[in-house]
Amino acid sequence: MWDQIFATRMARMTASEIRELLKLLDQPDIISFAGGIPDPKLFPAKAFQDAFAAALGPVMQAESLQYSASEGYPPLRDWIAGQMQELGVPCTRDNILITSGSQQGLDYLGKLFLSPGDTALVSWPTYLGALGAFNAYEPNYDRLCLHTNRPPADYAQRATAAGGQVKFAYASVDFANPTGETIDRAGREALLDLGDDLNIALIEDAAYQSLRYDGEPVPPVLALEIARKGDIDACRTIYCGSFSKTLAPGLRVGWVCAAQPVISRLVLMKQASDLHSATINQIAINTVARSIFADHVANLRSTYKYRRDCMLNALSQNMPAGVEWTRPEGGMFIWLTLPDHIDGATLLAKSLERQRVAFVPGRAFHADGSGGNTIRLNFSLPDETTINEGIKRLGALLR
Amino acid sequence: MWDQIFATRMARMTASEIRELLKLLDQPDIISFAGGIPDPKLFPAKAFQDAFAAALGPVMQAESLQYSASEGYPPLRDWIAGQMQELGVPCTRDNILITSGSQQGLDYLGKLFLSPGDTALVSWPTYLGALGAFNAYEPNYDRLCLHTNRPPADYAQRATAAGGQVKFAYASVDFANPTGETIDRAGREALLDLGDDLNIALIEDAAYQSLRYDGEPVPPVLALEIARKGDIDACRTIYCGSFSKTLAPGLRVGWVCAAQPVISRLVLMKQASDLHSATINQIAINTVARSIFADHVANLRSTYKYRRDCMLNALSQNMPAGVEWTRPEGGMFIWLTLPDHIDGATLLAKSLERQRVAFVPGRAFHADGSGGNTIRLNFSLPDETTINEGIKRLGALLR
Repeated sequence: MWDQIFATRMARMTASEIRELLKLLDQPDIISFAGGIPDPKLFPAKAFQDAFAAALGPVMQAESLQYSASEGYPPLRDWIAGQMQELGVPCTRDNILITSGSQQGLDYLGKLFLSPGDTALVSWPTYLGALGAFNAYEPNYDRLCLHTNRPPADYAQRATAAGGQVKFAYASVDFANPTGETIDRAGREALLDLGDDLNIALIEDAAYQSLRYDGEPVPPVLALEIARKGDIDACRTIYCGSFSKTLAPGLRVGWVCAAQPVISRLVLMKQASDLHSATINQIAINTVARSIFADHVANLRSTYKYRRDCMLNALSQNMPAGVEWTRPEGGMFIWLTLPDHIDGATLLAKSLERQRVAFVPGRAFHADGSGGNTIRLNFSLPDETTINEGIKRLGALLR
Repeated sequence: MWDQIFATRMARMTASEIRELLKLLDQPDIISFAGGIPDPKLFPAKAFQDAFAAALGPVMQAESLQYSASEGYPPLRDWIAGQMQELGVPCTRDNILITSGSQQGLDYLGKLFLSPGDTALVSWPTYLGALGAFNAYEPNYDRLCLHTNRPPADYAQRATAAGGQVKFAYASVDFANPTGETIDRAGREALLDLGDDLNIALIEDAAYQSLRYDGEPVPPVLALEIARKGDIDACRTIYCGSFSKTLAPGLRVGWVCAAQPVISRLVLMKQASDLHSATINQIAINTVARSIFADHVANLRSTYKYRRDCMLNALSQNMPAGVEWTRPEGGMFIWLTLPDHIDGATLLAKSLERQRVAFVPGRAFHADGSGGNTIRLNFSLPDETTINEGIKRLGALLR
């Protein structure tokens, strides 16, 4: 019955490999580098206790439990605008929409720009959740190349041949999921040039922006564009931020920062899709962010930096020749490239059976189905002992 | 720049008349019957204080603040399945998806079924938020007629002529927003017949289901279909429920109850669009629902019933001949039909200026742009004195 009624777009939505995999990880003897989640022991639980208690106290309870504006809670939008300012993005609350995590921002941007057959430019590999969000709007994908001389006309011609036009380029800019790599300043400038040449939107996914452990911060693409054009409202870059990696993912609070014509369309979309993000969560996040954000994130950075270093050391000590990996300056992930003949999914099956170590095979992150010989390792959740033991086992399997 | 890049579906998304109107209502001397919101003085704030404190206590904090499953929090899905059972819908948690309010359920169902040019059947008038959610997927609308002998082939032929097929019928079944009217059992059976004849999905919007003040409860359409077919997984009815009218809208927690093939598709959609609804809110709602739901809703019913009666009395005493209105058995709204020559939007402008009374003009609730001589009044928010004074002023204006 149902297959005759579902819309064609459902054909593009399939169960995520990661999701299915994660169902296996409840088994207690598994060492998992598969997750992409913060360490719950580091959550600022005390600050949230106080913030929710205040939100439900006599002064705020009626507001916290009630419907609220689709744009989001104004004091939180003000605080975010202040943070954006510190990153070189002068803006006001009118440039900020609160979303239910940055994932919802990506979904809305797919909905805002993509008609079936249009082209989205993404890196190979790219964030799996972005592909999941965009797939519902039936795009084609083309490979975003920032450090080559691929001419803009080439992107445009391919998109036309595929029956649409290029609508946006999506880039996870800092310590990207899955590779951990950062787009350098030259790459960001090249992205801006491409955006202007093709007249497309640029989606800057900055979910990991605060989690830099070393190296020099690179200004957001949006900041570089404002430096060129003078005003956020003249900019084509749409910045997606999140509190999921800094304060807590379970509250589902993120934001989009962009030119007002984009924000005003997204507000209509928000209203039509779920009215607004949870009022009480926005109020609590606002309280916690204003009281402890900088100190808390500094603490996260120090713990995650240590774990990254443990994993990089363990990889050096245990991986055989022919295995290569990234050395991320922040974030939660290290990306391994295996010899060509090794398939990540096959390796995972063996690894779970023989070594009880889990990770995410890399193919799903590639819009063209390549990347079979890659895997993603997470270092934010496991502690030092677990990292050392798990990488030792993985090295033994690969040798 | 942007208009050349936005997807065509954006053309169907326009600022809501209600939304723009509500911006005016901050002025303190306005008597407003325009809202559609619960009375915040009736929120179970103490119960939520305790529930959030427990959710953030040592046992639960790591889970409450963390990512969670796209399907929703299992104990809450179990509790909802139990409630559905009491309504005559035997089901398990596998038939329940937690959504961010029932609004998100409607958005997902539009996305699940509608390709551009397909037809959605809706009543004239219908819930404005449903039209808003569906519009993003570029449907045509045809009028759902349950108490006439409109032949199924007529719906199908019109849909084909419009370039698609009928994909679903949407019905707000109890004390509907905006009319307050309930679809009787014969109407629900007719809806099921139509669904089978056309092989379409049936979307049952039950957001107000718990708020019945008198009269006999009518079984959900889904319960009637299970009575015919024996098993929820053989049913085409998709039930959308919400805690927004019973516990608190600011937490954004609702649900979809349907056959597993539908739920499994919606779970993929949920994962792609915002991963999951806020974990902590689901945990808190579960605690509050299990401890006070029945008693709390009984209390709401008694207060809202009294306000409904006040408004019906005031209408009888103040409205001139030629004005007609519904007598809802529950919910939050009374629907007025004015003489043909009076336009609701024009009347609102006059009413705000001369009488300082607000309401919602009815045209926006009509997919065909008719209904100019209708208005919606809310009785859940204003107290008795306000209702009497506001209706007196409105009567004076209409005389």
